Amino acid sequence: KGSIDSSCHATKPDMLNVHLVPHTHDDVGWLKTVDQYYYGDRNDIQHAGVQYILDSVVDQLIKNPDRRFIYVETAFFYRWWKQQSSATQQTVKQLVDEGRLEFVNGGWCMSDEATTHYSAVIDQMTIGLRFLNETFGPCGRPRVAWHIDPFGHAREHASMFAQMGYDGLFFGRLDYQDRAHRMREKEQELLWRASDSLTPPMADLFTGILPNGYNPPEGFCWDQFCDDPPIRDDPDLEDYNVDDVVKRFLAIAKNQATVYKTNHIIMTMGSDFQYENANLWYKNLDKLIHYVNALQAKGSKVNVLYSTPSCYLQELHRANLTWALKTDDFFPYADDAHDFWTGYFTSRPALKRYERISNGNLQICNQLEVLGGPVSRKGPFGEGDSQTMKKAMAVAQHHDAVSGTEKQHVANDYARKLAEGWQHCQVVVSNSLAGLSSSSAERIYCDNLNVSVCPLTESSKKFSVNVYNPLAQPVNWAVRLPVNGTAYSVSDAKGRSVDCQVVPVSRATQNVRRNRGFAVNELVFQVQAPPLGYTIYFVSLRQDGPPPASTQPRPPTVIKNKFLQVTFDPDTGLLSSLSNLETKQTIKLTQNFYWYNASDGKNMDSSQPSGAYIFRPNSSTPFGISRTAKTETVQTSVVQEVRQWFAPWVSQVVRLYTDSRTLELEWTVGPVPIDDHLGKEVITRLDTSIKTSEIFYTDSNGREVLQRRKDFRPTWQLKQSEPIAGNYYPINSRAFIKDDEDQLTVVTDRSQGGASIQNGSLEIMLHRRLLYDDFRGVGEPLNEISSIFPEGLVVRGRLLLSLDRPPTAADTHRPLAQQVVLQPLLTFTDGELNSNTRLEFSGLQAALPPAVHLLTLTQWDKDKVLLRLEHQFQSWESKRNSKPVTVNLQKLFSTLDVLGASELNLSANQWKDEMSRFDWTPQTDHSDWEVTLRPMEIRTFLLRVRLR
Amino acid sequence: KGSIDSSCHATKPDMLNVHLVPHTHDDVGWLKTVDQYYYGDRNDIQHAGVQYILDSVVDQLIKNPDRRFIYVETAFFYRWWKQQSSATQQTVKQLVDEGRLEFVNGGWCMSDEATTHYSAVIDQMTIGLRFLNETFGPCGRPRVAWHIDPFGHAREHASMFAQMGYDGLFFGRLDYQDRAHRMREKEQELLWRASDSLTPPMADLFTGILPNGYNPPEGFCWDQFCDDPPIRDDPDLEDYNVDDVVKRFLAIAKNQATVYKTNHIIMTMGSDFQYENANLWYKNLDKLIHYVNALQAKGSKVNVLYSTPSCYLQELHRANLTWALKTDDFFPYADDAHDFWTGYFTSRPALKRYERISNGNLQICNQLEVLGGPVSRKGPFGEGDSQTMKKAMAVAQHHDAVSGTEKQHVANDYARKLAEGWQHCQVVVSNSLAGLSSSSAERIYCDNLNVSVCPLTESSKKFSVNVYNPLAQPVNWAVRLPVNGTAYSVSDAKGRSVDCQVVPVSRATQNVRRNRGFAVNELVFQVQAPPLGYTIYFVSLRQDGPPPASTQPRPPTVIKNKFLQVTFDPDTGLLSSLSNLETKQTIKLTQNFYWYNASDGKNMDSSQPSGAYIFRPNSSTPFGISRTAKTETVQTSVVQEVRQWFAPWVSQVVRLYTDSRTLELEWTVGPVPIDDHLGKEVITRLDTSIKTSEIFYTDSNGREVLQRRKDFRPTWQLKQSEPIAGNYYPINSRAFIKDDEDQLTVVTDRSQGGASIQNGSLEIMLHRRLLYDDFRGVGEPLNEISSIFPEGLVVRGRLLLSLDRPPTAADTHRPLAQQVVLQPLLTFTDGELNSNTRLEFSGLQAALPPAVHLLTLTQWDKDKVLLRLEHQFQSWESKRNSKPVTVNLQKLFSTLDVLGASELNLSANQWKDEMSRFDWTPQTDHSDWEVTLRPMEIRTFLLRVRLR
Repeated sequence: KGSIDSSCHATKPDMLNVHLVPHTHDDVGWLKTVDQYYYGDRNDIQHAGVQYILDSVVDQLIKNPDRRFIYVETAFFYRWWKQQSSATQQTVKQLVDEGRLEFVNGGWCMSDEATTHYSAVIDQMTIGLRFLNETFGPCGRPRVAWHIDPFGHAREHASMFAQMGYDGLFFGRLDYQDRAHRMREKEQELLWRASDSLTPPMADLFTGILPNGYNPPEGFCWDQFCDDPPIRDDPDLEDYNVDDVVKRFLAIAKNQATVYKTNHIIMTMGSDFQYENANLWYKNLDKLIHYVNALQAKGSKVNVLYSTPSCYLQELHRANLTWALKTDDFFPYADDAHDFWTGYFTSRPALKRYERISNGNLQICNQLEVLGGPVSRKGPFGEGDSQTMKKAMAVAQHHDAVSGTEKQHVANDYARKLAEGWQHCQVVVSNSLAGLSSSSAERIYCDNLNVSVCPLTESSKKFSVNVYNPLAQPVNWAVRLPVNGTAYSVSDAKGRSVDCQVVPVSRATQNVRRNRGFAVNELVFQVQAPPLGYTIYFVSLRQDGPPPASTQPRPPTVIKNKFLQVTFDPDTGLLSSLSNLETKQTIKLTQNFYWYNASDGKNMDSSQPSGAYIFRPNSSTPFGISRTAKTETVQTSVVQEVRQWFAPWVSQVVRLYTDSRTLELEWTVGPVPIDDHLGKEVITRLDTSIKTSEIFYTDSNGREVLQRRKDFRPTWQLKQSEPIAGNYYPINSRAFIKDDEDQLTVVTDRSQGGASIQNGSLEIMLHRRLLYDDFRGVGEPLNEISSIFPEGLVVRGRLLLSLDRPPTAADTHRPLAQQVVLQPLLTFTDGELNSNTRLEFSGLQAALPPAVHLLTLTQWDKDKVLLRLEHQFQSWESKRNSKPVTVNLQKLFSTLDVLGASELNLSANQWKDEMSRFDWTPQTDHSDWEVTLRPMEIRTFLLRVRLR
Repeated sequence: KGSIDSSCHATKPDMLNVHLVPHTHDDVGWLKTVDQYYYGDRNDIQHAGVQYILDSVVDQLIKNPDRRFIYVETAFFYRWWKQQSSATQQTVKQLVDEGRLEFVNGGWCMSDEATTHYSAVIDQMTIGLRFLNETFGPCGRPRVAWHIDPFGHAREHASMFAQMGYDGLFFGRLDYQDRAHRMREKEQELLWRASDSLTPPMADLFTGILPNGYNPPEGFCWDQFCDDPPIRDDPDLEDYNVDDVVKRFLAIAKNQATVYKTNHIIMTMGSDFQYENANLWYKNLDKLIHYVNALQAKGSKVNVLYSTPSCYLQELHRANLTWALKTDDFFPYADDAHDFWTGYFTSRPALKRYERISNGNLQICNQLEVLGGPVSRKGPFGEGDSQTMKKAMAVAQHHDAVSGTEKQHVANDYARKLAEGWQHCQVVVSNSLAGLSSSSAERIYCDNLNVSVCPLTESSKKFSVNVYNPLAQPVNWAVRLPVNGTAYSVSDAKGRSVDCQVVPVSRATQNVRRNRGFAVNELVFQVQAPPLGYTIYFVSLRQDGPPPASTQPRPPTVIKNKFLQVTFDPDTGLLSSLSNLETKQTIKLTQNFYWYNASDGKNMDSSQPSGAYIFRPNSSTPFGISRTAKTETVQTSVVQEVRQWFAPWVSQVVRLYTDSRTLELEWTVGPVPIDDHLGKEVITRLDTSIKTSEIFYTDSNGREVLQRRKDFRPTWQLKQSEPIAGNYYPINSRAFIKDDEDQLTVVTDRSQGGASIQNGSLEIMLHRRLLYDDFRGVGEPLNEISSIFPEGLVVRGRLLLSLDRPPTAADTHRPLAQQVVLQPLLTFTDGELNSNTRLEFSGLQAALPPAVHLLTLTQWDKDKVLLRLEHQFQSWESKRNSKPVTVNLQKLFSTLDVLGASELNLSANQWKDEMSRFDWTPQTDHSDWEVTLRPMEIRTFLLRVRLR
């Protein structure tokens, strides 16, 4: 920390030290796209141009060495940096070396905390911090996490930041009651213990709550966007106001000091896209500092200085006090009694799903780039790269991206970027698979299988399916392909025939695919793919096969396989019970669809409507869509489906695959009708016989699970003012309810909001269509349409239900959730394959133990790859899996020789042990290749590898 | 012009050269006060901060030596300059020396052209240009006059600019029909012959009309206030648009070239208060220049460059073409068929009068500072200065100041500044008069004599009146003092008794003075004061005097003195005829008050309402206020008054002093009633028997007179669309109508709008009260109230009528108008004067000839004074006076020895003959001390003087 010491301005121990932190908050997309923000394009929407901000700040920092600035979003800094002359770059390096320009946070963006998956967050932090590391070295390494704007704060984010080596976290938004309580108790600065599994202080993070969100104190905003009076210190001109300004400032500083613990306080001097003309800020701040400190000669005990979060944090650390300990999280966020920011947990469900799929595709792209070697990037299918998609995924983690709180055109841009990234990755995947399989046959991607669209399978009489599995364990997966034939034969890589069935395409699918495809049937079969590898299945049309399965007009009372049994109420067509036949447990289970009437802001309590951010139902009782479902049933040897039809805009398939331990609920919702001029927030609710005692559980960013209790917050006495919205929490990958006997776990395919309002019940919000803006800046109602769905977006998704005994439930839901996140990639080749095609491949010498998740495998540079291994169980959740497990790095890969390994921090921008670099020589088969993972641990390695 | 040559970028003779001129237009007050604009205060009203503009531009000029900028308003530059470090000052000097920062115009402000008096314009130009001259030397001397925003252009302004040594004038606003015609004829660049009296090319000025007002072409505004797309030239980011931008630019350039004569065109890249963040502009302009010129390699024939008006002008000059000659002016200005900017000729009549009085007071202050010597600035009454008032007057000349087109709070600020300036000047005046008179007795100023308020005279039984005459000729002046006694005796400096009369204060005056004074009578007597000097009158209350004059309830049919006879219609109480008894001429003359119903913008032709700028009556026929006047008459040996009462809000005194050749019409208008929700534009109309043939005459800025013809413009075929507003012209100091026999001249006491709509008639707009904003930015209806007049402003003024034979009329109106502009200053001393008080003083050895006006006498530095002598007659207007006249500089002053004299240009920032400096030694009584003035000539001298 030598450089911090030397670059921070001296403080005065006998005075109140006011740390002024000049900063800009640059959304990586919100009202404008990220590139519109960068250039300052479309200033008619919002005046903001990041290129000019960085130009201006650098100029102004040069003018006065006392000045400080922090910069946060590497997505923008990177764009700017590569356009600068080397002279400017040299100047900026010097500013960074001297601590005058300090990077904080430093990820590609400032991620959302409710709706992001930890793997994508780690990735986006990694590319941002890597750029800073490679550009500026240690002086460019952020020491402080800076999440000033996200709408609530996830414990898993804090855990990740701790593991990334940050000394502290600062943020601006928390529940208004929580803040009031913490102000009273002087607990706005605290120690967050962010994991119940990792050994302290591994996930401990000092956390500071900023005094004014991230804005300057009232009356002291000197940006071009502000109207506060500048300091007018020329006595020859009108309105000399130095005395007034100083007096107001001292009053604010002294008042602020009463709610913090030390004789240091921080003021954030900046806000959204400020400092485009940094001179305005700095000129007045220079004067403020001058005139306030001049009063010290007259006995004033206030000392004001330019500072940074690191310098401020250093002073807090030096104060050597004790700090309140927190172990829960900061959800949900409310900024007033009727203003719960719990709508965005679900907003833009299609984008949320697309982002999740894209994450899986990126991991596959990364893995195959490594496994395929250099030919992946330049091969028979041309030049490809994973970088485009890495960046697209990184911007999509922004807190107005996957959160769904951006304008429609910006949401479109995020999706477009992901699609473009995937185009680049497809070349990598095709090249890599061509190399691994020794077949350069054309490879077809079908991205619309969710709505049964795939031109190749719809028309081909003979084709093969490559199933690539990105998990480190083998996977069973049900494949459903749109076809027009009535009978097919399927065989696996070993030539063995595979049971397959043809079932008619559902009415819901026909509706939702519009004219993108015309298949009448779906071919369904189960595949098995090796760990970190692929296998190939062959499909041929049969002229002589049996007729396809037919649908029966009413539901069976029971569908079952060897693991599960599901019963239906014949009167309503709804689910009535679920049994686990292995554990011999049964629960009552009813499930139906409802909608909350979104507040239009016209009732009396408050004028807050539901919107992209805010969930505010008009009544605590949702409207049922239909008491009964019309049903059809398809029952085959591969799959049994009960197709439920609730309304023209709500349907569901209850699906049980023969080999599956989970019940799939494939819901299709939309276009949500608004001809009644009512905004609707559509939920599905599972009502069970489980005795939940008003408690349910949700995961945090897809990792550790937190307990949620109705109308309760662990650290303060909640005054509940929104009985529904105030009990919603983000569900990232799973939620469960349980009692001593039964645990019903729902694994989701994207981030959603959920709650448990009644005993035994769990509700999940699926789709929202709203008619009013909610006054948080986005300026649009969340009313999604598209060219395919001009009358309103239709969204389809899946909930995977498992019923288990609580002590073993994680053994099911942990791997299951990873399978959903990293689902196999299917690619297709028409006709026969070349005879020397390699039909099966695994990149691993052996499957990893069930507790170990291969989180990251990606090319780092020419001869190095980045590897992250993760223990995916919490310490308390599985008798079998919640224990340390050891992996031998050198025995990991089947086709890569590991020549060296160095352990890094989680974000890969610092050696794990900076003092003694962890690096072995390859000749010795040393036992230190063994890497032990404890529950919830992620270990990050840079491996020097050679393709065999 | 060596430095111009070297600092201008090279152009390409075989190409179309596009001169990009980065500029900011910084109003010296408008929606905010000048200091609010300077600091960037009250950005809630309008975002604008000039300090930051100059900071930013200097920074950006340094970054790239190709860049250019022009700066205009020295009021702002001066504020900024004195706050800069010497290092910054040095940098700026270098930028100026290298022509990278060029001053254009360079006056304290960009003056209004319709409502400003030439003497105040010359003063404000002088202080601005002097600052530049003394700060930067010759490289800081503006070569181009830049009047891009004033709302119409006065010929006298062009004449002054020519005499100030400007090479050319550029402006942005002219009548839309005129522009269309000039575009067709390629006459947007022309030669303006701006005087009919001065020998060409003395008042010839090259004049260029800018292509887009003063804005950039559409789509190319890159300021922070603009939303045009920036140049996005990073192919890695979205929306690369270089090709599109270049294509659009070339199209605009080529189109613009079709309406100008040469292969050079100019584009103004800036606008109101732009360049606060100059980086936005320059970064994109750099790119524009780069990409447009890059196309030359592919055969493009367009060359774009950073330029300045001087560099552009130089290229036009080199083109060596002939240019259309213009001899009239650019009034009135219309930007559409129903949008005549002729309302501001009258807007804020009280401010217009206060500005005119202040000009007189400043001249007196300047003169007495010289005549009194150093004791004037620091003497028995403390420290005083003329500088404060010089600056206050200078900002008041701005085109949103005396024009009346600023917001109310800004108008208040201008008035406050003038009052503050006058406070500083009063100290100078008191000190100087104390020195000159050898009496340090307390000196009282009564600034409210126009409404008969003066606490001293109201209560004192014995006091003296010092009458200071700033003219170079002796003056006769009627003094009216509020008193409460019924009889007084008055004696002059020689002890001679002076005829005086006590008349009752009129009802109108009682109404209008509110509670500021309580005098029941006015003491009236005629004074005579020596040239450039004072005399003292003594007033004593008489216990035994005659009763005051009484008012008679009805009008006489005739009032007369030895010069004039006025008749009244006994039925209506209105004037009916006017006779000059000396010339034996009589005209019929009826005069009454009317109001136009201001358009509220809701009728069908256009939605344009009347407002601060625009005059648009709803109908061409004004409403009469009353067909008859109630009258009272007071007739005494000193004055005869007919007091006319038209309505509670309109009254008038028709006043004839015994010694006067002019008839005074003292009108009082207001509060203009608006309870009928109709905006009103109040006029008085003189209807005469003079056969005017639809022609009348108005002065230009108080100097040369221009002929105006109804529904006619000298240089293009007018399509008249507003029969009243489209015939209004600015009257600065006088207007007249005439035929072969009779000329009726009206001298005004302030700037007003006027027209001659009917044969023989002359109307003058006196007051305006409007209920709507007129959409030209001011954002307020012109609806003046004040703390004294909360129900609406009351305004009082005077029209002075003279009837003469046309060939001799100027002999009357020229001196008369100067008497109104430079009226005597009365100061008062209570009680007896010290016996050794000097009772009379003249600074001149002798009165100057009637043709010569002492325009300027002001201290320049320790031992130098600035002198301007003016021939105040046009070459054609007076047989007696329109001929050259000679003055001997050394024999001018009675108390100053003139040790040397150097002639300067009109604005005193350049030696008249730069080649051979005009400087005599004092010992030789050389005949060259003789200075000859030809008609309308102003000669400016710097005199080295020594107080005797």
